[in-house]
Amino acid sequence: MNKISPSSLPPRVGRLKAGMAKQEVDVIISFKPENSFYFTGFNPIIYSHPVIAILTRDHDPIMLVHALRDDHGRASAWVPDIRLYGAWSTKVTMGPNWQDALASILGDLGVAAKTVGIEEEFVSIQRLGQLRKALPDATFTDVSHLIDHCRLIKDPDEIAQARIAAKIADLGMDTAVETLAAGGTERDVAVASMHAMNRLWAENYPDVEVCDFGSLEGGVQNGLWTWVLSGPRMFFNCDNPTQRKPQRGEAVSVLIWTIANGIHAENERTVAMGPLPEVNRRALNAILEIREEVDAIIRPGTPYRDLFEKTREGLKKRGYGANIPGRIGHGIGLGAHEHSSLDANSPLVLEPGMIFTFEPNIRVPCVCATQISDTVLMTETGREYLTRSAGGYLEV
Amino acid sequence: MNKISPSSLPPRVGRLKAGMAKQEVDVIISFKPENSFYFTGFNPIIYSHPVIAILTRDHDPIMLVHALRDDHGRASAWVPDIRLYGAWSTKVTMGPNWQDALASILGDLGVAAKTVGIEEEFVSIQRLGQLRKALPDATFTDVSHLIDHCRLIKDPDEIAQARIAAKIADLGMDTAVETLAAGGTERDVAVASMHAMNRLWAENYPDVEVCDFGSLEGGVQNGLWTWVLSGPRMFFNCDNPTQRKPQRGEAVSVLIWTIANGIHAENERTVAMGPLPEVNRRALNAILEIREEVDAIIRPGTPYRDLFEKTREGLKKRGYGANIPGRIGHGIGLGAHEHSSLDANSPLVLEPGMIFTFEPNIRVPCVCATQISDTVLMTETGREYLTRSAGGYLEV
Repeated sequence: MNKISPSSLPPRVGRLKAGMAKQEVDVIISFKPENSFYFTGFNPIIYSHPVIAILTRDHDPIMLVHALRDDHGRASAWVPDIRLYGAWSTKVTMGPNWQDALASILGDLGVAAKTVGIEEEFVSIQRLGQLRKALPDATFTDVSHLIDHCRLIKDPDEIAQARIAAKIADLGMDTAVETLAAGGTERDVAVASMHAMNRLWAENYPDVEVCDFGSLEGGVQNGLWTWVLSGPRMFFNCDNPTQRKPQRGEAVSVLIWTIANGIHAENERTVAMGPLPEVNRRALNAILEIREEVDAIIRPGTPYRDLFEKTREGLKKRGYGANIPGRIGHGIGLGAHEHSSLDANSPLVLEPGMIFTFEPNIRVPCVCATQISDTVLMTETGREYLTRSAGGYLEV
Repeated sequence: MNKISPSSLPPRVGRLKAGMAKQEVDVIISFKPENSFYFTGFNPIIYSHPVIAILTRDHDPIMLVHALRDDHGRASAWVPDIRLYGAWSTKVTMGPNWQDALASILGDLGVAAKTVGIEEEFVSIQRLGQLRKALPDATFTDVSHLIDHCRLIKDPDEIAQARIAAKIADLGMDTAVETLAAGGTERDVAVASMHAMNRLWAENYPDVEVCDFGSLEGGVQNGLWTWVLSGPRMFFNCDNPTQRKPQRGEAVSVLIWTIANGIHAENERTVAMGPLPEVNRRALNAILEIREEVDAIIRPGTPYRDLFEKTREGLKKRGYGANIPGRIGHGIGLGAHEHSSLDANSPLVLEPGMIFTFEPNIRVPCVCATQISDTVLMTETGREYLTRSAGGYLEV
């Protein structure tokens, strides 16, 4: 996936090195699947043996993987420098475990006794113990924020993948709405929508992988997903679909999450099953109006918190002052939910290259709920909606 | 999912408490999604706000969740005692963050200044810092092994789910083999197989959820997966399927992974596309014979390492002494790959209630590979194959 010629490293490598210089970090060793993929282009899907990305300020990224990932890694990563640990059939490796291999690589690079950046929001206490033993002279420092900050601005290869993920999500939404109109259960809608997305991917995107980043006890082979929550189940916010059949007069949340070569998109709509009761229709119309009001200020230079405040103002004005959400969107990319939040306390300002979900919504517990979200890319001059399926008031 | 009456807690709660007494732990606070589900029965799918399970030696499990998970949590968990943190619409909570709520709960239980067990193989360095601040008088100790050890023996509710997951996997395998026979690409095979499993689930298992445990930046809505690696791609061991069409004379790895209410099953087969070259046929027949030899000693009381040694012996005897795998299976349950390995160094002995994958295999790099795995349950007197699709030499 994401094959890039070694001579043209993606811009993020330069940004990471600049961040390292600023924070006075000599080497980053990355263990978090989303991040080691970001540094190397390799997602083995199964992470029971860690993939370790190594980056110094004056050396291109190195990838250290278990021997059983050798062939797969060489075929997938854009990093040309791949080292092996562990034992697997007749493969020759740097040693039986990653600790020895890592110590040896850092020794050769002259950084084993320097400032070593690790992801303190991900690296476990147990792994820190292993690292301290392998690199007894290193000084460890947290680079979670440094990496998250780099990830805020997407590289051209990432934007290209986000467009594909959004296109797949749009078909998923269209199929879900059609299946709802035809009278399917929550599961019928989810299964038909996921199958349509998979067929689109299988036939049209030869160079795209749709695996995701999973638990370290598992691995996500396919990340094209449709969530359906009908009527009172909307208040669960998220859940596995059931055999419940949406009833006339109910609203239904359809959430589509997709991934293309590691980059996610999200397309969420609230669908009315015929005419809705006044309380639901009013909420849905209110949020659609608020979306337009807030959309008008989505441009480079607008602080995230202004988007939140504009939403709050719109909700208050319409009598929903007691139902202010915690946030109205979040960063999206290697994570379906990246760390940045469009909330009241965000220090961030919209910049070209950012991708986020835009999802002001209303929840009045037990009364009414709306769920509408698009994936939005910041351009030099404004914003571009990557998800483009029908918006507005959707009734089937 | 897994609705259990509060008066009949699953046996694991008693085993966990016994383990705590032995290790002199006063309270466990569990953050790892697989484990907090094990302690409570709740998988919110999205874990951006942690689900925290709290267990003391003389109190039933308590579940602490973000307010936006309140309705979903009450509908899903078998734990009746649910507490809320955070802010969400008009919900009343214990405080704005989990730290304050946790400190208050542990204070009430009288264990805030005692020995607090945490999952050091999962809990991040950053989270440990938050815990130390929230519970300044606690002594933290690692309970990763205690929990993993309990998870080795499956409870009746878990075994029931494993049977369902295996049944779904069997249909996935049958569909994959049929689609291979019909001449599909890797992706055609995967997509048809995943769709068949989803339809089976959607129509026949009203009380089963098929969501999985994912990355903390995402969430796995659907975990019914088919992996297909044909010809030389078998050496990747795992990968996303491609548009490659398996050729006559090639072997193909089909890997099915499923989940039912949090419990996984695995069914893997090597399929011959017509007659195979002698080198491949010989490896496949060798591994089928070795499986039978090793199967004969799968019974309560056999050490894991004996299964490994018997495999090694069989491989050596047949000329594959240079191609010994690192392990020949692993525990399976809440994780598709649980921590226990069937390898040369395992201290474990087969016991009733254990579920593991049985997968002795051969990899001769660039020459030939086999991949065959079943999900096996240990009974009081022997073993039961939960996955039951056609085994033996499969040719289409």
